[in-house]
Amino acid sequence: MAKQPTALECGLAILHSTFQKYAGTDGDNKTISKKELSAMLKEQLPMLAGDECVTALMETLDQDKSGTLDFMEYCVMITTLCSFASGHMPPQ
Amino acid sequence: MAKQPTALECGLAILHSTFQKYAGTDGDNKTISKKELSAMLKEQLPMLAGDECVTALMETLDQDKSGTLDFMEYCVMITTLCSFASGHMPPQ
Repeated sequence: MAKQPTALECGLAILHSTFQKYAGTDGDNKTISKKELSAMLKEQLPMLAGDECVTALMETLDQDKSGTLDFMEYCVMITTLCSFASGHMPPQ
Repeated sequence: MAKQPTALECGLAILHSTFQKYAGTDGDNKTISKKELSAMLKEQLPMLAGDECVTALMETLDQDKSGTLDFMEYCVMITTLCSFASGHMPPQ
């Protein structure tokens, strides 16, 4: 019988499949455009889906100023959101 | 009827609950010790559970040299593992 994936393996798989689901809509599945990020947030994290929030996230996370988020920048977003949601943010 | 959590909400919840599950075993539930990290990897990511791997992860991720991983350092680990697993690592 195949080994069941662990909780953390499932968590990592969700992060990756969510990126792939939204990154591919404009033909380039390696990056997430602002439009794709907006669609992702509307469907996946509705409380963050406002235009201002999408713009702020893009400006903060698009470290190489490419106008898109690559997978690493996307993962930093997830890390930041996770920290905010769990109240673990370091003192500013 | 209560709204179903989205996939990404579930992913974030898994990351947080996994941290809490292992961070609390030594009484300090805000950080993960080397022993707790080893237990987490053995149960959650067995392919990374070797002593060398645990030591390398701790040395790389324990940015403030506290001997433990806080939640942000843990999230960086998740980001790195996710990138490795998905082949999205930036060129070294």
